[in-house]
Amino acid sequence: MLLNCPMPQLDFDMITLGHGSGGILTNKLLASGVFELLKNPLLDTHHDGAVFELSGRLAFSTDSYVISPIFFPGGNIGELAINGTVNDLAMCGAMPRYLSLSFIIEEGLTMTEFWEILVSIKAATQRAGVQIVTGDTKVVEKGKGDKIFINTSGVGQVHPQAQISLQHVKPGDKIILSNNIATHGVAIMSVREGLDFETDIVSDTVNLNEAVKHILDEFGAHIHLLRDPTRGGVATVLNEIARDSHLGINLWQRNIPVLDDVAGACELLGLDPLYVANEGVFIAIVAADVADDVVELLRQYSFCGRAAVVGEVVAQHPRQVVLTSSIGGKRVVNMLVGEQLPRIC
Amino acid sequence: MLLNCPMPQLDFDMITLGHGSGGILTNKLLASGVFELLKNPLLDTHHDGAVFELSGRLAFSTDSYVISPIFFPGGNIGELAINGTVNDLAMCGAMPRYLSLSFIIEEGLTMTEFWEILVSIKAATQRAGVQIVTGDTKVVEKGKGDKIFINTSGVGQVHPQAQISLQHVKPGDKIILSNNIATHGVAIMSVREGLDFETDIVSDTVNLNEAVKHILDEFGAHIHLLRDPTRGGVATVLNEIARDSHLGINLWQRNIPVLDDVAGACELLGLDPLYVANEGVFIAIVAADVADDVVELLRQYSFCGRAAVVGEVVAQHPRQVVLTSSIGGKRVVNMLVGEQLPRIC
Repeated sequence: MLLNCPMPQLDFDMITLGHGSGGILTNKLLASGVFELLKNPLLDTHHDGAVFELSGRLAFSTDSYVISPIFFPGGNIGELAINGTVNDLAMCGAMPRYLSLSFIIEEGLTMTEFWEILVSIKAATQRAGVQIVTGDTKVVEKGKGDKIFINTSGVGQVHPQAQISLQHVKPGDKIILSNNIATHGVAIMSVREGLDFETDIVSDTVNLNEAVKHILDEFGAHIHLLRDPTRGGVATVLNEIARDSHLGINLWQRNIPVLDDVAGACELLGLDPLYVANEGVFIAIVAADVADDVVELLRQYSFCGRAAVVGEVVAQHPRQVVLTSSIGGKRVVNMLVGEQLPRIC
Repeated sequence: MLLNCPMPQLDFDMITLGHGSGGILTNKLLASGVFELLKNPLLDTHHDGAVFELSGRLAFSTDSYVISPIFFPGGNIGELAINGTVNDLAMCGAMPRYLSLSFIIEEGLTMTEFWEILVSIKAATQRAGVQIVTGDTKVVEKGKGDKIFINTSGVGQVHPQAQISLQHVKPGDKIILSNNIATHGVAIMSVREGLDFETDIVSDTVNLNEAVKHILDEFGAHIHLLRDPTRGGVATVLNEIARDSHLGINLWQRNIPVLDDVAGACELLGLDPLYVANEGVFIAIVAADVADDVVELLRQYSFCGRAAVVGEVVAQHPRQVVLTSSIGGKRVVNMLVGEQLPRIC
C-alpha cells in the first residue's frame, strides 16, 4: 500500500536532544505532522495514556525493535515494529486492537528518515486494522543509541473460539509452517556491512492477524498452539515447545518450505535456515484431522502460499526435536547456540 | 523495601550480544533467575504475550526510560520504569494491573548491575501491586546504546468513579501539587558529569497509584484532571493544559512547595524549579469546594506531605499560565524552551 503523505514543511531537518525534552521542541515535533499522521480519537486526547472500553479475555504483548539497518530490503523498522507486535498478539489467538508506540531516537536522525518510518507505521496499522493510541519520544546523545529504536506494545481481544495453550499440544498433533522460512534473516544479512551480497531477497515482514483469525474462525479449539519463529528461528522455537511440553517433535526436512535463493544464500553463508530469523511466518500446532484443511485455508493468503505440514508431535524422545533429512537421515536439532546475527529485529 | 534476593551463581558476569539472540543464551539469561525473580502465573506461560480477563474502561500507557546515570541518588532506572508507567496509568484515573517490561541492553552491562535493576523492579512492582506479565530482551553492540534502556507499558482498570478529562476542567477549579517539586531533576543533575555537586537530595521516584485511588474513592468526579509533571516540569504541563483547554491558569509562587536544598541548588544552577523534571509528584485539578479536603487527604501519605493548592483555573488570559511571585509581581510562564537536561527519565 502506498500512502501519499508528503513530509510537512519544517524549520528543522534533524532531530536533536531538545526534541526529547518534553517541552516546546517535543510539542513542535509531535505537532509537526506526527499526531496528524497517526490521528484517531484516542490518540487525540494527548493524555499520559489512552482510555478505552474492552472486555473479556485480553492479550498483551511487547517488543523492542533494534534492527540494523533501519531501512532494509522489503521494509523498515517502522512497519516491522507494527507487524511484530500485531503478530505476537495473533500468536496468543488474539485480534490486535490498540498499540503503543515509543521511540528512542539518537540525535541526528534526519526528519526525512523519521517521516519515512512514520508513514510506514501508518500504513502498517491500516493493513493490520489497529490504532496507535499512546506513545512516547525520547532522544539520546550521538553515540548512545543507533538512529532509532522502537518499542511497540499491544492489546487485543482473544478470539472467542481460541484455546491456544501449550497444555493442549499432544502427541499426534501436526506442525504447520505458514510459509517459506529464513527469508527475513537472509534479506537483512544481504545488506549487513562486511557481509553484503547481491540478491533480490526481501524481508517477508507482514501482519499475520487476518490469516490467524481466519483459521480460528474455522478450526477454533483444534488450533492448539501458535508461535512466530523470529530470533533463533524455527529450530529454537520448536525446542522451546518440546522442552516446555515435555514432548518430542519430528520434523521432515523435505516439507520445510525455503525459497531457492534463500537456501542458496544460506549454503553460501554456512547457515542452517532452521536457525535464521523470520518475520512473516508462523508455526501452528493443530489437531491431526484438521491439518490439511488448515494448510489449504492458509494457502489462500499470498503470504502463506507455501504453507505446509512439516512435522508432528510425538511421545517419543521427549524435549527433543529430531529432523529427518531429505535423504532420510535423522539428527537432533538443538536451540540456536550463540548469536547468528545480532539485531535482526 | 529491602528485598533479600541474592544474585544466583552464573557462569557469565556480563551481558553479551548472544544474550539477545533468542537462542540458548537468551534462554539461559532468563532462566538464570530473571523469570524466577519476577514470577507469576501469567509470566510463567512464556508465550509471545500474556492473556488475562479484564473488563470495562481500561487505560493503556507506555514509556521508554533512558535516564543517565542508571543508578542515581534515591533509585535506579528499574524502579523508575515501574513507577513511571504505574503513575501514567494512575493519571488516567486507572488502577494499574499488568505491566510489560522490555530491555535494550548495551553489551558489557555487568550481571551485577542488571540484577540490582531487576531486584528494584521486583520491589517496585510489589509496592505498586502490579505484575510483569510479558517482556522482551534485546542486546546491542557496545557504543550503540548506553548500558540499558527500559520500556514499560501498562494496562489498568479505570476507577469506576473517575471522570478524568480535559473537558471537565473549568474556571474556578483549583490546582493541587501533591508534593515538593523539582526534587528528581536536581537529584539527577547532582551526579551528572560536568555538573556534579555535593548534596543529600535524592530522587522522589515513587508509585502514586494508592494515593490517587484514595482521592478518587473519596471525591470521584470532583477530580477533573490528573497529570504528572515529568520532563518539562510543572510549567510545561500546565501550559499544555491551558493550551488544550483554552482556559487560563493562575499560579501562586508562595504556595508552590520546593525543598530548601532543591531551591538552593536551582538558584546555584540558574534553573527555575517550575521547569525541572519530577517523578513522585502529580498535579490534580479539582472542583474548588473539595480542594482543601483533597489536600488534607493527600497529606496522610508521606510522599504527599507537602501537598498544597498552588493555583486556579480562570477564564481570563486563555491559554496562558500566569505566576504571581512571592513578592506580588505577575509574569507569564511559558513551556520549557530547548532542553534543560537530557535523559532525566
